[in-house]
Amino acid sequence: MASGLYERICSSADSKSVWMRKQRQDFHKYAESGWHEVRTCSIIAEHLVKLGYTDLVMGKDAFKADARMGLPSADELDNTYRRALDQGAVLPYAEIFKGGFTGICATLDTGRPGPVIGFRQDIDALGVLESRESEHRPAREGFSSVNDGWMHACGHDAHAVIGMALAELLTEFKDELCGKVKLVFQPAEEGVRGARGMVEAGLLDDVDHMFCLHMGARAKGDAESQIGIGKINCFSLANAKLDICFHGDASHAFEPENGNNAMLAAFTAGQAIYGIPRCSLGGSTINIGQITGGTGRNVVCDEVKMVMELRGWTQESLVYIEEYTRRIVAHAAAMHGCTSDIELKGATVHTKIDEPAYTEEMIRFAEGLGFKTFGPSSGIMSDDFSYMAKRVYEHGGKVLTFQLLSDVPAPFHSTRFDIYEDDLPTGLKFEAACMLRCMGLM
Amino acid sequence: MASGLYERICSSADSKSVWMRKQRQDFHKYAESGWHEVRTCSIIAEHLVKLGYTDLVMGKDAFKADARMGLPSADELDNTYRRALDQGAVLPYAEIFKGGFTGICATLDTGRPGPVIGFRQDIDALGVLESRESEHRPAREGFSSVNDGWMHACGHDAHAVIGMALAELLTEFKDELCGKVKLVFQPAEEGVRGARGMVEAGLLDDVDHMFCLHMGARAKGDAESQIGIGKINCFSLANAKLDICFHGDASHAFEPENGNNAMLAAFTAGQAIYGIPRCSLGGSTINIGQITGGTGRNVVCDEVKMVMELRGWTQESLVYIEEYTRRIVAHAAAMHGCTSDIELKGATVHTKIDEPAYTEEMIRFAEGLGFKTFGPSSGIMSDDFSYMAKRVYEHGGKVLTFQLLSDVPAPFHSTRFDIYEDDLPTGLKFEAACMLRCMGLM
Amino acid sequence: MASGLYERICSSADSKSVWMRKQRQDFHKYAESGWHEVRTCSIIAEHLVKLGYTDLVMGKDAFKADARMGLPSADELDNTYRRALDQGAVLPYAEIFKGGFTGICATLDTGRPGPVIGFRQDIDALGVLESRESEHRPAREGFSSVNDGWMHACGHDAHAVIGMALAELLTEFKDELCGKVKLVFQPAEEGVRGARGMVEAGLLDDVDHMFCLHMGARAKGDAESQIGIGKINCFSLANAKLDICFHGDASHAFEPENGNNAMLAAFTAGQAIYGIPRCSLGGSTINIGQITGGTGRNVVCDEVKMVMELRGWTQESLVYIEEYTRRIVAHAAAMHGCTSDIELKGATVHTKIDEPAYTEEMIRFAEGLGFKTFGPSSGIMSDDFSYMAKRVYEHGGKVLTFQLLSDVPAPFHSTRFDIYEDDLPTGLKFEAACMLRCMGLM
Amino acid sequence: MASGLYERICSSADSKSVWMRKQRQDFHKYAESGWHEVRTCSIIAEHLVKLGYTDLVMGKDAFKADARMGLPSADELDNTYRRALDQGAVLPYAEIFKGGFTGICATLDTGRPGPVIGFRQDIDALGVLESRESEHRPAREGFSSVNDGWMHACGHDAHAVIGMALAELLTEFKDELCGKVKLVFQPAEEGVRGARGMVEAGLLDDVDHMFCLHMGARAKGDAESQIGIGKINCFSLANAKLDICFHGDASHAFEPENGNNAMLAAFTAGQAIYGIPRCSLGGSTINIGQITGGTGRNVVCDEVKMVMELRGWTQESLVYIEEYTRRIVAHAAAMHGCTSDIELKGATVHTKIDEPAYTEEMIRFAEGLGFKTFGPSSGIMSDDFSYMAKRVYEHGGKVLTFQLLSDVPAPFHSTRFDIYEDDLPTGLKFEAACMLRCMGLM
Repeated sequence: MASGLYERICSSADSKSVWMRKQRQDFHKYAESGWHEVRTCSIIAEHLVKLGYTDLVMGKDAFKADARMGLPSADELDNTYRRALDQGAVLPYAEIFKGGFTGICATLDTGRPGPVIGFRQDIDALGVLESRESEHRPAREGFSSVNDGWMHACGHDAHAVIGMALAELLTEFKDELCGKVKLVFQPAEEGVRGARGMVEAGLLDDVDHMFCLHMGARAKGDAESQIGIGKINCFSLANAKLDICFHGDASHAFEPENGNNAMLAAFTAGQAIYGIPRCSLGGSTINIGQITGGTGRNVVCDEVKMVMELRGWTQESLVYIEEYTRRIVAHAAAMHGCTSDIELKGATVHTKIDEPAYTEEMIRFAEGLGFKTFGPSSGIMSDDFSYMAKRVYEHGGKVLTFQLLSDVPAPFHSTRFDIYEDDLPTGLKFEAACMLRCMGLM
Repeated sequence: MASGLYERICSSADSKSVWMRKQRQDFHKYAESGWHEVRTCSIIAEHLVKLGYTDLVMGKDAFKADARMGLPSADELDNTYRRALDQGAVLPYAEIFKGGFTGICATLDTGRPGPVIGFRQDIDALGVLESRESEHRPAREGFSSVNDGWMHACGHDAHAVIGMALAELLTEFKDELCGKVKLVFQPAEEGVRGARGMVEAGLLDDVDHMFCLHMGARAKGDAESQIGIGKINCFSLANAKLDICFHGDASHAFEPENGNNAMLAAFTAGQAIYGIPRCSLGGSTINIGQITGGTGRNVVCDEVKMVMELRGWTQESLVYIEEYTRRIVAHAAAMHGCTSDIELKGATVHTKIDEPAYTEEMIRFAEGLGFKTFGPSSGIMSDDFSYMAKRVYEHGGKVLTFQLLSDVPAPFHSTRFDIYEDDLPTGLKFEAACMLRCMGLM
Repeated sequence: MASGLYERICSSADSKSVWMRKQRQDFHKYAESGWHEVRTCSIIAEHLVKLGYTDLVMGKDAFKADARMGLPSADELDNTYRRALDQGAVLPYAEIFKGGFTGICATLDTGRPGPVIGFRQDIDALGVLESRESEHRPAREGFSSVNDGWMHACGHDAHAVIGMALAELLTEFKDELCGKVKLVFQPAEEGVRGARGMVEAGLLDDVDHMFCLHMGARAKGDAESQIGIGKINCFSLANAKLDICFHGDASHAFEPENGNNAMLAAFTAGQAIYGIPRCSLGGSTINIGQITGGTGRNVVCDEVKMVMELRGWTQESLVYIEEYTRRIVAHAAAMHGCTSDIELKGATVHTKIDEPAYTEEMIRFAEGLGFKTFGPSSGIMSDDFSYMAKRVYEHGGKVLTFQLLSDVPAPFHSTRFDIYEDDLPTGLKFEAACMLRCMGLM
Repeated sequence: MASGLYERICSSADSKSVWMRKQRQDFHKYAESGWHEVRTCSIIAEHLVKLGYTDLVMGKDAFKADARMGLPSADELDNTYRRALDQGAVLPYAEIFKGGFTGICATLDTGRPGPVIGFRQDIDALGVLESRESEHRPAREGFSSVNDGWMHACGHDAHAVIGMALAELLTEFKDELCGKVKLVFQPAEEGVRGARGMVEAGLLDDVDHMFCLHMGARAKGDAESQIGIGKINCFSLANAKLDICFHGDASHAFEPENGNNAMLAAFTAGQAIYGIPRCSLGGSTINIGQITGGTGRNVVCDEVKMVMELRGWTQESLVYIEEYTRRIVAHAAAMHGCTSDIELKGATVHTKIDEPAYTEEMIRFAEGLGFKTFGPSSGIMSDDFSYMAKRVYEHGGKVLTFQLLSDVPAPFHSTRFDIYEDDLPTGLKFEAACMLRCMGLM
């Protein structure tokens, strides 16, 4: 019955090519980093409303508020909100996303029996100052980021646009489809901060098939893009990003008895944290990456901040080192008459979904449709997606992450990163194919 | 013979009152911090040349170059040199002081037998952002610092002007004086960086009587200024200001074996430095006041800087803790595969010149002339002067430090600090009186 | 052709049961710990000579001298040598083993073509004070250790006796066998100290099939003994046992500048060693188990000893942490004006011989002979054997470790440990069966 | 009236010479260390009773029980009590001193008005193994210590005997004296443990003149003994002797998560304690002199003991570092899941009694009586006496410490230490002279 459906969808996808490029360049130019994606969300929201979507969970409804991690300060959010309005954020939608609630879950219900199929798109930019040099195409063509210090250097502009285009395809072919499709536009993937809040809002609890696409880099010199499907469907270490602050009291260095030395608290804690014994619960990594503190050479230091990351090869090993770290910090502070704060700036859960048969099936499926494939590669892709994958899998759903790999001109996260825009319809087509397969229509 | 000489000098001093205020406000407005005092020096130099001084040791001649401490970078010096020219530095004198050689030693030789008498004036501003509020007189009257972040918040603008006025008095009364007078205009007193270079150039090796004036704060509510003479003529702890840098190599936090962790070197060193045992050579103080390092949360830290100060109640105890610190730093670095630098940013030598009889005589002398006195107070005044005092004393000379204390409106080193400008001629008169006494003319 | 051979061997093995018990109780009573096994070796040597063995590599010939690890002091060895003579060590054999050369490799060459088959027996006791209570059979029956603080609490007395009995069987059935059999009696297995020296003497370089038996504990309440064959033929982590000593100089606590504080060196090193970053080369474990140092409360500590162990899940990860540890120790010492020694007291190499098919074959083989089996269990058995296994495997030989498991009355290494003496002929029979299989005679 | 009294007392003192030697040798042979002085006390008590003393405060009455420091365990006290009985402790007196209450305060009240005069004698031996060599007179003459590991190597045997002889003189001349005399026999001076308990029992609250004699070493080659009187009457740093214990939980080194690592707690605490900042409250010394801990190389360490001493040049500086140390210990333990104990094993209070005029008077007084004097030397003598001196001084009394210096054959606290027994009557005479002077009888 659905004969020719996939072909018609592909044809429609190709026809969106010019629009997709244009919208991607718009997102690229007005790059917004994690929890600041007000303009981006308002444009997506307006697009979805125009397409007729009525089941939109947005803003505060799309998050368990206190499960969001690594939020900027209220002042920062206010400042960037105003800037977003200046840069064309669409009202009244923009208001919905104010205050660090920059996510959307749009559901299309065909009204016919069938599976619930989810697609995750992350939409945030990175803290990178984009190149202004003419060798960099976005600079040359005038769409490099106008927001100094923020840049789409990881391809999430492409992810967002593919999601918008998929939303449009769904409405075009709704009558020939079955089940429900959920399109999740997620903020703050960088720093692994955004997924948890959406998962804990329950948005994915009914999903049967979850897909996550990410742009990737393939070997130099090969023009054709590839679909990369990892031998492990989804994999993430357990991860906790902590910001630690020791608060002491300044005094003249001559009279340390009148102060409380936060520097000593930091030294004691720093050595003890690195010294947490290796345990038998699983491997782990500890890194204190940044430190800053103190106001003057001859002043007892009143504050030290340390920026650190813990990773566990199992959830248990992360819990062990994180709890130990928290105990060390509290007692290192108290030992030196100081107090301490620990802020969880980001986290992932240990996730390993390893179904080689499914992977193999999907590779064969992609090849059968003429996609060039690359696999089995590692399944690591977006650590932050681990929350979503784990939830779907625990509820009995299936999960697949895949990459769309091109010969990108510069490494991911670098100042001259760019994507290969011909990939946009390719990614859209493969997402549509996956959807049809789940619906039993291919 | 010199009957009435002191009275005539005082009269001349009073007549310079308006000019001194004006010149002090000029220095205040164009505040220059340590080793940047190009404009200040050029104005002093022009003044001295106009007065007919021919024995001027200036710029590179006034310093043992590598005994200068805590120099800014060449770039910084270049930038501020250009700014000095923009702000009225006098050519060709300005060129003499380029590159961190901002000192002058002017000698007036009367041609008659007599002692060599030295006066030290420090001329540098502090790293303080001056208040712009109207309660602050310099702001209200339009002479607050135009060089953001630099401010004469310690009264060295007054010291410089009193020295210039003394130079003028000397030429006026030259024929009635005897011996030689050396006026030392010294840079970079803040951070105890400037005196050593001038001392090691030998400028003070022939001085018989050395004086050092410093502005001071007296108790609130007492309008009249005082001359404060400490019970110890001169006192300074031994002091070393060190900047320590650990250089490692970055790597991903996952692969620390590919990096060398400067953070660990800093933790090891920091704990060990604080843990240097108290020794029997004398008391000491150790303070690591500031720390900064690292580039990213999940990057093995490649560089940490620590800013610290060591003090010893004796020279021996300082040597002990400084050598121990240097050993710790080198080995803490090597232990973690890193390298290290230690830069001496400032230093003082332990100096204690304790001649209560001389102090008592000078207090009586000041009171005999009608000065209100305040003493015996502590003799600590300007730690940096310790190099000069020690050299003069070791060569058999006498040393006296004294303070000119007023009811200043805000604490020294604060953003609203100001002096009481009526003190300018008072300080000048007392310096002149000291000089006459040494010459046997009072 | 060899029909009935195995049955006749079994019959002979059973006939040795009483003798084996008696000899085992003798070894148990005169327990000798690692490198002190002079009496034990002399009895084995006399036994082998009486049986007619002529190819005996013993004492200094059986070891690469400096590859022996964790040797006692010369004084200790002298003392225990005298004691061994008092307790019946057999002369002149005892002299061969003097000075920590307590090993024997006996070869029986059948003169017929065939494989070289090796059996390793470890012969040392542990540093445990044996129970004197009547619930403990050796105490009750009068054969508990007379050497206070040394006890056969790991069953090596049984291993030694099974080896001696196997030597006898070989001579009885020599004419029906083929190839060569090497019986290796190895000292100092406890602390993983003894194997390396024998391996590096080249004793195993020609072995085609290597077997290693160890007593084991099976579940309570099951009277019958079992042969346990692990799913991995042989497995050992890489392991380094280090004794660290910091040498400083004492002084009165008042005058630390006259001393060098070994306590501070130990604190610095201890924290830094635990703080060695987890690397990506493989998991690891670090433990500083014991510390001792100092002579008086108010004396600057002149010496600290630390006893530690490093383990790596790969050889590379052990190398990383061991090299880092050595660097830390040297620099922590130098930092505090001290010197340091590190002694390697024991080590194993990472070994993983994983041939499930061979394991499976051997389990089937044992069951076919009526042995009750237990497998696949873990292949870890005697970490020290790793050197032998690795050498044989690298030369193309096959390796198998197996356990003889009984319901022992108390845990291994505990003060009331005892074996089940009926296991002695069982172990002997299975070793013989393995040998016949390798010879193609079963 | 009392004409000739001093001469008659001297004559009586000389007559006690033989008995004093004998009793001193008896005490020397049966040396008892701190809190174990049961035999010594029982002999002194019997002596005093026989002399007719009725005002005897002994055993539990002589101490505030919980102010005693550094007590041995109950088992140790029991063992040495039994040994004391075996070695001739006098019953029923011995029973009085059981359980670590080995002190006596005997008061002779003349019934006539006059001052209260105190003499302190310490009576304990040291933890030193006395030389058995014939060069050592006590060994040669058969009175070296029979209690292995305990030795009167600091002359307290002499102090005790001089006190006993003074008690006898007092009864002989009672009718010619006035006021009261208190003879305090104090245990556990070594380790500065014993004085506090007696002071806090109030024994010295009414003393007007307090004297403390100690044997001393004078320059080699000068046969004649001297009375040494320091320029400061009494001086002691503030001092706290702490034993610290960290209690963790053992586990296999592979599974540190099942244990709590006391070694890590010790490392963290040790570094932090040495790193306590130098404060402005006064100088200080910190020394961790001994450490011991752990049971096995591959066992997570379950207990570490550290033996340390803190000293302060002021009471305030000691309080600062002691409180900081206690805070560090508690939190270092808690940080690593451990608990901690701190035991105060000994302490002194900062005491400085500096009355040069009194010192000078007493030197003149001694010289007037024909004593050879040596002064002004330092007033440090017995840190433990500081509690007594401080109490007497605070109540308005006068305090004097003095030494009886001879050319001793070996250093104090060494295994061949001996006193010069001719000093016994010399010390007695000078104590008597001091007493008569206070009574106004000389």
